[in-house]
Amino acid sequence: MSLQTINDFSIQKTEKSKIDSIDFENVKFGTVFSDHMLVCHYKDGAWGQVEIKPYGPMQFEPSSNVFHYGQAIFEGMKAYKDDNDDVWLFRPRENWERFNKSAERLAMPQIDETRFVDGLKTLLQLDRDWVQKGKGNALYIRPFMIGTHPGVVAGPSSEFMFCIILSPARTYYSGKVKVQIAEHYSRAANGGVGYTKCSGNYAGQFYPTKLAQEAGYQQVIWTDDATHTKLEEAGTMNVFFRINDTLITAPTSERILDGVTRKSLLDIAKSKGLDVQVKSIVVNDLLEAIKKGELKEIFGAGTAVTIGQIEGFAYQDEYHQLPEIADEDSYAVMLKETLQGIQTKAIEDTFNWTEKI
Amino acid sequence: MSLQTINDFSIQKTEKSKIDSIDFENVKFGTVFSDHMLVCHYKDGAWGQVEIKPYGPMQFEPSSNVFHYGQAIFEGMKAYKDDNDDVWLFRPRENWERFNKSAERLAMPQIDETRFVDGLKTLLQLDRDWVQKGKGNALYIRPFMIGTHPGVVAGPSSEFMFCIILSPARTYYSGKVKVQIAEHYSRAANGGVGYTKCSGNYAGQFYPTKLAQEAGYQQVIWTDDATHTKLEEAGTMNVFFRINDTLITAPTSERILDGVTRKSLLDIAKSKGLDVQVKSIVVNDLLEAIKKGELKEIFGAGTAVTIGQIEGFAYQDEYHQLPEIADEDSYAVMLKETLQGIQTKAIEDTFNWTEKI
Repeated sequence: MSLQTINDFSIQKTEKSKIDSIDFENVKFGTVFSDHMLVCHYKDGAWGQVEIKPYGPMQFEPSSNVFHYGQAIFEGMKAYKDDNDDVWLFRPRENWERFNKSAERLAMPQIDETRFVDGLKTLLQLDRDWVQKGKGNALYIRPFMIGTHPGVVAGPSSEFMFCIILSPARTYYSGKVKVQIAEHYSRAANGGVGYTKCSGNYAGQFYPTKLAQEAGYQQVIWTDDATHTKLEEAGTMNVFFRINDTLITAPTSERILDGVTRKSLLDIAKSKGLDVQVKSIVVNDLLEAIKKGELKEIFGAGTAVTIGQIEGFAYQDEYHQLPEIADEDSYAVMLKETLQGIQTKAIEDTFNWTEKI
Repeated sequence: MSLQTINDFSIQKTEKSKIDSIDFENVKFGTVFSDHMLVCHYKDGAWGQVEIKPYGPMQFEPSSNVFHYGQAIFEGMKAYKDDNDDVWLFRPRENWERFNKSAERLAMPQIDETRFVDGLKTLLQLDRDWVQKGKGNALYIRPFMIGTHPGVVAGPSSEFMFCIILSPARTYYSGKVKVQIAEHYSRAANGGVGYTKCSGNYAGQFYPTKLAQEAGYQQVIWTDDATHTKLEEAGTMNVFFRINDTLITAPTSERILDGVTRKSLLDIAKSKGLDVQVKSIVVNDLLEAIKKGELKEIFGAGTAVTIGQIEGFAYQDEYHQLPEIADEDSYAVMLKETLQGIQTKAIEDTFNWTEKI
């Protein structure tokens, strides 16, 4: 697609790129932003023109809805560069569709595929030099929408801003992490917003995560809030368990995010002939499996990290270390290598997931 | 307190007040703001200078934490003017303390009483003409704090902004409302953030409330998310039920806000010799009471509205209308008149709740 195909996009290029000042080898996740961003405003019941312009601060009224009533949703995506310098997106329409599901639950307007997907592609064309080649390298993409209407009336905003910003990324976590299974705190209610990528889901996790970190763990495995027995997510990721040679993850629900990485891993695992079960798994299953020596692996799955391996978990003040596993025997490593290979075009994409910009 | 007592407050007055352009008789709640606002920034582990300056828009990075991860809390308070033109706050330290409880749960910094309460008083001195006399009139006060650190890393912000804005208010709701009892959606999880005034609690309510409104009701009575039987809050308010001559409200919990209006009404009711019970009330209690003709009143309680009377409720597609009640027999009316009388100094404040600025 060329920049010219979307006639109603307004494009204002930066006068001077800052790319030469970036140390891409040592960039810290989510801290550096590319030259341009996409901005689009919703007002009087309709989205306006897509503006692509230099990345920079914006003005907001102190009474803007997002500061008080939290209408804010986002997506996490990545763009990859292959050996031919072509830039690829991974299942972008999945993110667009999920964004609109989040929008519906948060009483925010739907956004069309042109503004979201084609807008993103246009932005990436402009900032394609920010997508670095090489294993683990990507340009992290953050589409988000916020309520901007001024006024401290407790109700949905009538004005919104859709925005996409880009941030060069290497790997998110390094090494395996220890997790704590939540016994008191929780991230989602039945009939709540747990399945959406709304800002409130994240703010509520920070304090329990801080307590877990003070106790020596890096992340929390979230359980259902009613019984604290069902294992639902790990930190901000979906969570997988390998018991013997069966790979298990919870079904998506009102409380659990329908992760693009999660569903892609399930498809890859099935295509590799692995025994995959999508079912609720409870703490007692885990304790029994580790006692019997049957619990082989636990890992989180999400766009930022792809796969984050977990080396052990604490439950009721007792820590359980998983057995060491060689990389060549690890489902986590195999799935991560395969998924990243598909994303960067090093492995043939038989699933038709990648999309060239 | 004079402006001079706080030496490290910086005060920049507006060049021209906009007060003459305001139609105070017809102002819509939460849409008009006074001449000045209070702003204070947290950075490197400490709060900076309190700045009082002209109300206006501010600049934020598009990657600011609040837009993505939702660290945002607020309070709702009011200032009242008595017949001698003195301006009064109502239990401001309760709001300050609750603000800090919200801050802790949302992994945000505590703020000191000087910046919050004395800062507010200094701001109100400057904008005291915005506090209008007369029944139902007040200046609505909105203290809030948001995470401002730029970066799309899923974790707590290291920088925050505390801000207070002021908005002239008449009554919030007019007339009695019909409500729908939530059977599927919910506002709070066990181990979640329901008891805090964080932005995410509000955004999650808008969609279910919109569905209730489309079905002909103005608000939702929220139930516990596990069983959908316990009646917990009404819209953004605490909720009271009068069965025969007993006034009942749910105990505060992790899921229920510790409302200042709620606790003040409980104290007033006890001082009037009413039979008050703080206990969980379930849907079946309500259905039984209305069948027997014992359900006399339902009302919500909160700062914005003081008391909002409810004329009937829908449950499982059946609507139940409460019996008509004369104002002189209504607990809601009596409690509202008493509380508003105390707030505006028309009735002697035997509780020592009011504080002159």
